[in-house]
Amino acid sequence: MQTGRHFLAIPGPTVIPDRVLRAMNVPMVNIYEGPLIDMTHSLFPDLKRLAGTAGEAVIYIANGHGAWEGALANIVHPGDEVLVLESGRFAPGWGDMATQMGAVVHTLAAPPRRGVDPAAVEAWLREDTSHAIRAILVVQVDTATGVWNDIEAIRRAMDAAGHPALLMVDCIACFGCVPFEMDAWGVDVMVAACQKGLMTPPGLGFVFANEKAMAVRRERGCASAYWDWLPRTQPDMYYKLFCGTAPVQHIFGLREALDMMAEEGKDAIFARHARIAGAVRAAVAHWGQGGPLECNIVDEAARSNAVTTILTGEIDAQALRRICEDDLGVTLGIGLGMDWSQAFRIGHMGHVNEPMILGVLGAVELALTRMEVPFRAGGVEAAVNSI
Amino acid sequence: MQTGRHFLAIPGPTVIPDRVLRAMNVPMVNIYEGPLIDMTHSLFPDLKRLAGTAGEAVIYIANGHGAWEGALANIVHPGDEVLVLESGRFAPGWGDMATQMGAVVHTLAAPPRRGVDPAAVEAWLREDTSHAIRAILVVQVDTATGVWNDIEAIRRAMDAAGHPALLMVDCIACFGCVPFEMDAWGVDVMVAACQKGLMTPPGLGFVFANEKAMAVRRERGCASAYWDWLPRTQPDMYYKLFCGTAPVQHIFGLREALDMMAEEGKDAIFARHARIAGAVRAAVAHWGQGGPLECNIVDEAARSNAVTTILTGEIDAQALRRICEDDLGVTLGIGLGMDWSQAFRIGHMGHVNEPMILGVLGAVELALTRMEVPFRAGGVEAAVNSI
Amino acid sequence: MQTGRHFLAIPGPTVIPDRVLRAMNVPMVNIYEGPLIDMTHSLFPDLKRLAGTAGEAVIYIANGHGAWEGALANIVHPGDEVLVLESGRFAPGWGDMATQMGAVVHTLAAPPRRGVDPAAVEAWLREDTSHAIRAILVVQVDTATGVWNDIEAIRRAMDAAGHPALLMVDCIACFGCVPFEMDAWGVDVMVAACQKGLMTPPGLGFVFANEKAMAVRRERGCASAYWDWLPRTQPDMYYKLFCGTAPVQHIFGLREALDMMAEEGKDAIFARHARIAGAVRAAVAHWGQGGPLECNIVDEAARSNAVTTILTGEIDAQALRRICEDDLGVTLGIGLGMDWSQAFRIGHMGHVNEPMILGVLGAVELALTRMEVPFRAGGVEAAVNSI
Amino acid sequence: MQTGRHFLAIPGPTVIPDRVLRAMNVPMVNIYEGPLIDMTHSLFPDLKRLAGTAGEAVIYIANGHGAWEGALANIVHPGDEVLVLESGRFAPGWGDMATQMGAVVHTLAAPPRRGVDPAAVEAWLREDTSHAIRAILVVQVDTATGVWNDIEAIRRAMDAAGHPALLMVDCIACFGCVPFEMDAWGVDVMVAACQKGLMTPPGLGFVFANEKAMAVRRERGCASAYWDWLPRTQPDMYYKLFCGTAPVQHIFGLREALDMMAEEGKDAIFARHARIAGAVRAAVAHWGQGGPLECNIVDEAARSNAVTTILTGEIDAQALRRICEDDLGVTLGIGLGMDWSQAFRIGHMGHVNEPMILGVLGAVELALTRMEVPFRAGGVEAAVNSI
Repeated sequence: MQTGRHFLAIPGPTVIPDRVLRAMNVPMVNIYEGPLIDMTHSLFPDLKRLAGTAGEAVIYIANGHGAWEGALANIVHPGDEVLVLESGRFAPGWGDMATQMGAVVHTLAAPPRRGVDPAAVEAWLREDTSHAIRAILVVQVDTATGVWNDIEAIRRAMDAAGHPALLMVDCIACFGCVPFEMDAWGVDVMVAACQKGLMTPPGLGFVFANEKAMAVRRERGCASAYWDWLPRTQPDMYYKLFCGTAPVQHIFGLREALDMMAEEGKDAIFARHARIAGAVRAAVAHWGQGGPLECNIVDEAARSNAVTTILTGEIDAQALRRICEDDLGVTLGIGLGMDWSQAFRIGHMGHVNEPMILGVLGAVELALTRMEVPFRAGGVEAAVNSI
Repeated sequence: MQTGRHFLAIPGPTVIPDRVLRAMNVPMVNIYEGPLIDMTHSLFPDLKRLAGTAGEAVIYIANGHGAWEGALANIVHPGDEVLVLESGRFAPGWGDMATQMGAVVHTLAAPPRRGVDPAAVEAWLREDTSHAIRAILVVQVDTATGVWNDIEAIRRAMDAAGHPALLMVDCIACFGCVPFEMDAWGVDVMVAACQKGLMTPPGLGFVFANEKAMAVRRERGCASAYWDWLPRTQPDMYYKLFCGTAPVQHIFGLREALDMMAEEGKDAIFARHARIAGAVRAAVAHWGQGGPLECNIVDEAARSNAVTTILTGEIDAQALRRICEDDLGVTLGIGLGMDWSQAFRIGHMGHVNEPMILGVLGAVELALTRMEVPFRAGGVEAAVNSI
Repeated sequence: MQTGRHFLAIPGPTVIPDRVLRAMNVPMVNIYEGPLIDMTHSLFPDLKRLAGTAGEAVIYIANGHGAWEGALANIVHPGDEVLVLESGRFAPGWGDMATQMGAVVHTLAAPPRRGVDPAAVEAWLREDTSHAIRAILVVQVDTATGVWNDIEAIRRAMDAAGHPALLMVDCIACFGCVPFEMDAWGVDVMVAACQKGLMTPPGLGFVFANEKAMAVRRERGCASAYWDWLPRTQPDMYYKLFCGTAPVQHIFGLREALDMMAEEGKDAIFARHARIAGAVRAAVAHWGQGGPLECNIVDEAARSNAVTTILTGEIDAQALRRICEDDLGVTLGIGLGMDWSQAFRIGHMGHVNEPMILGVLGAVELALTRMEVPFRAGGVEAAVNSI
Repeated sequence: MQTGRHFLAIPGPTVIPDRVLRAMNVPMVNIYEGPLIDMTHSLFPDLKRLAGTAGEAVIYIANGHGAWEGALANIVHPGDEVLVLESGRFAPGWGDMATQMGAVVHTLAAPPRRGVDPAAVEAWLREDTSHAIRAILVVQVDTATGVWNDIEAIRRAMDAAGHPALLMVDCIACFGCVPFEMDAWGVDVMVAACQKGLMTPPGLGFVFANEKAMAVRRERGCASAYWDWLPRTQPDMYYKLFCGTAPVQHIFGLREALDMMAEEGKDAIFARHARIAGAVRAAVAHWGQGGPLECNIVDEAARSNAVTTILTGEIDAQALRRICEDDLGVTLGIGLGMDWSQAFRIGHMGHVNEPMILGVLGAVELALTRMEVPFRAGGVEAAVNSI
């Protein structure tokens, strides 16, 4: 037990702004008439703007996994072939979902601790001369490994291979944190959720679809009424936007979060995330000069601005996390999909600023000191200097 | 614009207790460790107790329609035959969902303004000598018509017909408001949601399944990872309970709502709903002695204790609702699936008590008076006397 | 234990609107710079408008008693003579405060269960030929007896007597509920507080002073720095507005409450209070036709629109209140300054509307019925009809 | 405009814990009966425990200045002589209040940038051979200068001089942050408030009085009903605890804050404040090795653990504060009573922990860097190392 604000530095769900919590802390309203209706409709243009698309957007009451299924259910049918570009834990997870739906899933894995290699994608696709692959599944950022994939380059690789597959991208871990230009980059389907960069309690998933993807839905149908894009994008009654009762409090919360983001501005948001992620990497690099700490992702350009996964070698990451949480009021992320004692993660997405991240890094350095493990002191100062 | 507390008397989402809103108004927490884990696990026994089952329970991040699909996805496969017992708007809606999944849907409609007739069900099923029907879909209460169906009697009819179909019941509109004994009544699958009797903002759907239903899932598979009961009921990791990120704030809210319900006690809750519904019906009956107002459901025993649908004949129900909302601070429900000008609904489920309902009825009587339409004055007093 | 919203029907502190509570539920802010400063300054014009004065206003961090002292401390000095116009509990209480300050307090009591008689005031003052009385203390509404005094008539009586005393009026129980025209009526000092008609949690008291009162302060001094009007009305630094740290959350709350009042409009607010008070009186009159219930105030014109005190005769008012609170979710006011078993009060001020008061009256009638005491049933209907 | 949590680092009002805000965000309750009564009574023992006294405690609806007056009103009468021990801005301010009440105020000033010198106090009092001084006013910590005075030593000095004056101590700026032992140290009257170490929105002031002080009140009277200790410490009715309406929401908030403090424990709280203040001083000392930054208080032992006042010499403190607030989300305190461009303050009291203070110090160092002013980089690291 200690006092002072708790610092949640996990890579999602992230710190909810007071404004968003307050916006949700309101009495229930009518769902057939009144201000909720207009407020709901106002969300879509803002979400599309953030996604860089003039296509369609749907909001599911669901988490990110639900949005994954919402994307697949409109595109992938039993027997379809799908290519997963593996660079961590999440694209394969999405692929497993496609397998359960009856698809045949192929996997092209990135080299360990690296991002997807566009050249490898191109080569793989050139082998698919029959164009059996209907869709490619890839994440922009993997929450587990902390990798950032170059989606634009992957699209170029697909084009270079002359392959007609749909490009489906999971941006859950970084939507609203790093640039994403769906239309400009040629992404056909994008999946996101509200509880990371969008600073809203978990409960909403998003899917964006361009005309090419919508055409697939129209031509091949959708066996799920809940995930079906058609009534959600052409609703003749309000409730069809959500296939049933609207998520009232979440609509209020998301509206407030999008307002905050509009006030700051997309470019400023991305710059802030870059600055803060740079501070984390500067600290890790400094600490690592005297011990085993290092970023999981080897290639500097492929380190995400939303989450950093740190390998701890012989330093007990679980003990480190425990000191931070119990003694210093900082919750770090576990090493998801890794040995929890050899890795931890720092989430730096959403409602985060310089003093928050310096406080988190300060706690990590204090914990390292108390553990009497090898590291080079001065990481926090390196972070300050990097900003 | 007027002042004083607004009365929301729609049949869901219902008035959220201050305690529940406050329980949700908390900073985000870790989703991998800590108190959220135990709190989540504590929800299931309470939900099962309320459903009267020793079977399995799953909590979907979804609305009631999502829970419908969650129930179907584990039971119904393309080509399966399903029987819908129509007594309003919602069982057919559920059936449409099965149709979209590829099922063949048959419908047995109740007589107009009445509940499902068990004898008719028995007769229908006796005709199905090949036992082609795999599942029967029925609602306990229909939010649109306000009917209450006698589920126990329907099961007896199925048994009398010797039919092996699964009995799947939608309790969304009345879960936590009226008795439901899943195991004792022989219900195989039950669907509910959090935003009505459970007094929690919309965003959670529930499915309960007995062993017979679970066996179907195990034997025939499930093409949806999101709706799949198996990982959710046998999770080796916490996140599998929700197929992804947990709905943190909703867990806090639902926990508080279930605590409130435990404090009051199941029997007391049901008695309260019966008392308050009786007051509404007493007022309507009284008003109707001098004009066209009447309960939509003809059979008194089939009027639900959760919502009352009122037919208004030549009285303009839209004008009535407008006066109540704009001048008197009371929001009534629209006549769902009916001519909005000839019907309205009063929701009396969840966080409701005697003075609340008397306030609502008082507003309706005031509005009737101002409209100078035919009705017998004294309905509020009739309501007082009925309590 | 029961569920549903609780109805607080005491004559203050009153129901706090959700909007006001939410406005207060914000992180702490800087008190030396920033938006708090302008927001604070915005309160004074709105308060003055409500008081009907172009004079000065001060906001004390204090309750109503504190504001009483704040008024006296600037006007009354040891040895001064003061006249209290007694019509309940509160003007004498204010007088006791003056006594403790060293003033000589005279009392002119209204007839039992009636308001102050202006003619008696005039007669009394004519006797004070030496004009020894420096100030007259009177309430506009007495929270205990429920009386409303005609302040305008009292001023006319003073003028008729040609008496120069300051007229000091306590509007705590009705500020923002009934008309008050400080300047037009010739009131010199007015005292109010935030927790009744102003719908804000208790913690702020207000004093309004016209030029005549300010001149007294300037000429005769003030021995209290905390209550002193001078620095508060001519602050060269922000903190002097409050003689120290500003009441941050209360400023946010009061700002929201005043915004709500501006949205509704002063006249509409007063009309609403009149309408709702009329409904209460109609119910009491009806009940009283079959038993001992009656309004404490005999003269109909002197019954306040903010609170009604009801005498219960041989009906046990404590038992009545207990049934309402424990079984029906309605808290009634005790018979302040009376035998608690022979009187109770209904507060109908601030955030109140028709369905709220009908709910409260319905609960009272239900309780009377359960107690099997003599009363004429139909009081709620009488209330409906009166609106 | 930027995003991420705002850091309020002013020396009060301080960061309000979410738990406290939430505890206040509740509907209004009855003030004559029910749980509020017991909760109110539970506050006094906890406050006394924190003050280290078996004497009396009163809770005023007022800010700290109000509590000052509440203390004086019971002890000091017109013509009384009082000695102010000046070590900043606040003891003289308290003395001004006594002057306005008619007391004759003498002042003994500490040397610039130092605390009160007990030897000087002893010498001064020895000169007062007639024991004309009735009370000595001193602060434990001055919010403006950041000085901490050794109250125990001052009492010893008074005893050494054999002087019978009452020792009255203002602990507003440090109550609940640093040790205070009223009875053990021989303090007669202590004044505090809720908005600093007690983490509650401003609106409550506290006065503690031992038997010697209560005897003065009883013997000499009190001209103020609002500030009078007698009815507040011997209330025969609940409302007398507050001389009127209770501060409902503040009672809920203070209860929660005291619960948090009990959970952490008095010693742990004091140790935390010492640790965090040490970190601030380490950073300032480090920065000062390359430029003009220095602690205002020269004597290290006299630097308070609640607030640090930093002199900036030729560095523009206003520009520094502006960068921190506008660009980095950190609000620093102004140089109260000093040239705002040559000093600033860091509040580190109440709801504060290591990552919070490291975040604040990081922001200051970032601002210094951006301003390109002389300082030695590495202050944040020095802070980390000091912890």
